[in-house]
Amino acid sequence: MRLACQARALGNVKLYIPPESLSATQRLALEGEAVATAFDPSVRIYDIDIPPPGLADLRDDASRIIDVLTERGEPRPNVDLPALAELPGRLRSQRWSGRVIVSRHEENCPRLLGVLPTGAIPFGLAVDLGTTKIAAYLARLDTGQVVAQAGTMNPQTAFGEDVLSRISKANESSSSAESLREVVLRSIEGLADELCRKAACERRAIVEAVLVGNTAMHHLFLGLPVRQLGEAPYVAAVSDPLELAAATVGLELLAGARFYLPPIIAGFVGADHVAMLLAAGVPASSDTILALDIGTNTEISLIHGGELWSCSTASGPAFEGAHIRQGMRAAPGAIEHVRYLEGAFSVQTVGGEAPIGICGSGILDAISEARKAGLIDHRGALARGHPLVSHTDWGPTCVLVGGDDSESGKDVVFTRSDVNEIQLAKGAIRAGIEVLLGAAGIEASAIDDVVVAGAFGTYLDLDSAVSIGMLPPLPRSRYRQVGNGAGHGAIQLLVSRGQRLAAHKLAREVRYVELTVHPDFPEIFMQSMTL
Amino acid sequence: MRLACQARALGNVKLYIPPESLSATQRLALEGEAVATAFDPSVRIYDIDIPPPGLADLRDDASRIIDVLTERGEPRPNVDLPALAELPGRLRSQRWSGRVIVSRHEENCPRLLGVLPTGAIPFGLAVDLGTTKIAAYLARLDTGQVVAQAGTMNPQTAFGEDVLSRISKANESSSSAESLREVVLRSIEGLADELCRKAACERRAIVEAVLVGNTAMHHLFLGLPVRQLGEAPYVAAVSDPLELAAATVGLELLAGARFYLPPIIAGFVGADHVAMLLAAGVPASSDTILALDIGTNTEISLIHGGELWSCSTASGPAFEGAHIRQGMRAAPGAIEHVRYLEGAFSVQTVGGEAPIGICGSGILDAISEARKAGLIDHRGALARGHPLVSHTDWGPTCVLVGGDDSESGKDVVFTRSDVNEIQLAKGAIRAGIEVLLGAAGIEASAIDDVVVAGAFGTYLDLDSAVSIGMLPPLPRSRYRQVGNGAGHGAIQLLVSRGQRLAAHKLAREVRYVELTVHPDFPEIFMQSMTL
Repeated sequence: MRLACQARALGNVKLYIPPESLSATQRLALEGEAVATAFDPSVRIYDIDIPPPGLADLRDDASRIIDVLTERGEPRPNVDLPALAELPGRLRSQRWSGRVIVSRHEENCPRLLGVLPTGAIPFGLAVDLGTTKIAAYLARLDTGQVVAQAGTMNPQTAFGEDVLSRISKANESSSSAESLREVVLRSIEGLADELCRKAACERRAIVEAVLVGNTAMHHLFLGLPVRQLGEAPYVAAVSDPLELAAATVGLELLAGARFYLPPIIAGFVGADHVAMLLAAGVPASSDTILALDIGTNTEISLIHGGELWSCSTASGPAFEGAHIRQGMRAAPGAIEHVRYLEGAFSVQTVGGEAPIGICGSGILDAISEARKAGLIDHRGALARGHPLVSHTDWGPTCVLVGGDDSESGKDVVFTRSDVNEIQLAKGAIRAGIEVLLGAAGIEASAIDDVVVAGAFGTYLDLDSAVSIGMLPPLPRSRYRQVGNGAGHGAIQLLVSRGQRLAAHKLAREVRYVELTVHPDFPEIFMQSMTL
Repeated sequence: MRLACQARALGNVKLYIPPESLSATQRLALEGEAVATAFDPSVRIYDIDIPPPGLADLRDDASRIIDVLTERGEPRPNVDLPALAELPGRLRSQRWSGRVIVSRHEENCPRLLGVLPTGAIPFGLAVDLGTTKIAAYLARLDTGQVVAQAGTMNPQTAFGEDVLSRISKANESSSSAESLREVVLRSIEGLADELCRKAACERRAIVEAVLVGNTAMHHLFLGLPVRQLGEAPYVAAVSDPLELAAATVGLELLAGARFYLPPIIAGFVGADHVAMLLAAGVPASSDTILALDIGTNTEISLIHGGELWSCSTASGPAFEGAHIRQGMRAAPGAIEHVRYLEGAFSVQTVGGEAPIGICGSGILDAISEARKAGLIDHRGALARGHPLVSHTDWGPTCVLVGGDDSESGKDVVFTRSDVNEIQLAKGAIRAGIEVLLGAAGIEASAIDDVVVAGAFGTYLDLDSAVSIGMLPPLPRSRYRQVGNGAGHGAIQLLVSRGQRLAAHKLAREVRYVELTVHPDFPEIFMQSMTL
């Protein structure tokens, strides 16, 4: 049974909602947009009465349920140990009736996950495990409706801000690796609790979970070794999709709950990118699509003529405000937009607060505007003698906001070094795009659709990004900013077996391009750093 | 590939050895005998070289192995998480070559268990988890040869001697249940270590394990609830065969090792009985066979005309020396055989030591001889006035060994109460046999073959057992004492997929007869207590 689903425009935000769930009170807006998917979950729900045992009927508990299902013509399910351990108590406390939950992730090998009380709603949990943030969504698996969302910082940040420092940490000892695993597990359980409070359900009503993340997050979460991910040639332990018992990964949901992780493309192109491509509608489209997930590593895919090329490029943490002299995250007081008019900068801050520092979209704007105004040349050098430029202890420096208007009373500035950080970052991204275009043998003008995903990608000013040469010069109408594409993709993988198959196909067919050994990359990278 | 196997007579002991393993030094005698089985293990061994990763070959580690297998035309195996977690380290430390172990337990769904060093022998562990004793065997899975055996007491005995007291203990709290599970797990790991020392191998060379036990032992070992096993109508949580990751049950072998448990027949007819029936050759025979596993509970099966009936009967602990005034286990000094000649008892003790007490086979002999000599009547009353019979604080008492000959200097005796215990025990067994004969509609004389298994069954004097009416009066040649049939069956299940299929078929087709609700049982039981 496949139900048509809809995506509805609501201001700038599109809702991802299957048609059953359009009641006004239950609508839930997700940031950004995703292509709607068919509701075809892997779990099946059976409301059954189970004959209780008696001296004339001595079958075991599991057989009682299985026999009812097979008598209805359903295939015989397997039952895992954690689900078995719950059955005797549940069947007796529920007086031999309830909702039997079966997973049909593998069509030929169904699994009995457990028995919920009569009328109880089975839920699914979708997790986007980012290097910096964790986003989680709760969806009804009887309707596909997303009923709650929650987010938190990735607590592994305490062990290292970026992926490589966490890999180093995990390599120190097995207990370090276990700590990294443990803190994320506890965070996800915390998010699950928060979602369950919002939806007024118990955690054991969650019968299935999906997790997407980059390859390092995926491996650390599963307790897989990451040493080989941190050393050339950076290979994964496994890239196939995994469908496991949730108990195996240590997540306490329904005892027999299942846990799905989509396939990985390569050491630095993870399942989160696969999920984003799904959410962006790549598998169903025949257009030429460029899809980017911008972050500390930027994953880039190019889809053309039914083929798919992907690469990963080290864009660094500048877009998250790191390595920028007065950089900061997009918190209140962060300069997020900059315009240069009539010889002066005007800025917009998060929350309209007095300026404290500059976040990623702000520094991008500032450099774009400064370049257009001639304060920066094509090599990134600041124009000596301009009233806003001076030489300070930080080297050549340009004032964005004078001390009179700032929160601290001191100037908010950017430096030549900051410009260089952005040149490196945008150069890496643009070079990745150019290498993929070369692999496909097309010009940028052939791209029908540019999908920009990720937190930074949602808030960056596309005109600025094009102006500084980070993104190719294409009509603005060809660009789409899709927000948390990985999170949307995770939800789709939770409610649609078709999307799982699409993910498996996509991962099998992708051609991964390793930039570090690409003969033209250094030259293209150098050119791409020009402003 | 099926290899013919042989069973060789060596004195009273038959060897269970596949033909490859007949080198004199490696022969291993198992107590008792078993029907030989074909060597067709579920694990497959592939000696392969694996292409290492490089900048031109960025496949993940798992795919490197899987691709080599599929290129050889083998089906694509799945890999569980614990096996995945080991792969990156192993492949690198073994310099990209080794013996890949794949389980083909499910023909259509092979599993990659791990990679052993080149030339390493993969071993299998067979465990017979008895209520009182645990026996373990180590077999080579490249040849089928049994290379070591070991045994220990079941440490759960500290929590209760019999099955019901352990069920009560487990019901107290989840931590009690976990303690029961934990002590057995540690014992089995200790036995595995002992076997590995004997075979000079590492524990991670064990790639598969099989465990047989009665239903309560099976459930407690797996952490399944047993409350419903201790209350009428005594149903199992699950009776299907289970094939699990060894890591799931907490057993540290090869990280990806598998763990197989054969099917259960009923709450009180467990997988150990199924294993015994396999070892006794029941599935392959067209004879009418009566098979008994005598213990605190005695499981009885009758095979006739291609049909199989089974029951369980509460024979009590008297045969293990419990509930007998001067009863003891078959330890040195235990009277194990008794003859009455010319007005006096003569006894034989374990180890030829001075008599301390009486073990199960001894009390059976004593009562049989005393009955024949007229010291006991058909109701079990002791003959007043006989020189060996007196009335003591223990009631009517018969002296077996005078104080002059005993270890303690005091008489070794049996009492009227002891006789009653044996009457209850043997009555329960005989009544079970009679009910099954009734179900099959045959007389005892139609039985071609009586298989008596279990520790007590191995040492009991068959003539005495027949004489007191515990077993039907058949020619001695129709009886076989097969020793630890359950252990032998466990080994067969380890090395033969055919025996697994036979076990599954047997468990599906068996007709379980519940004696407690059988209308004729009370009457038959009363009659069967007669001596």
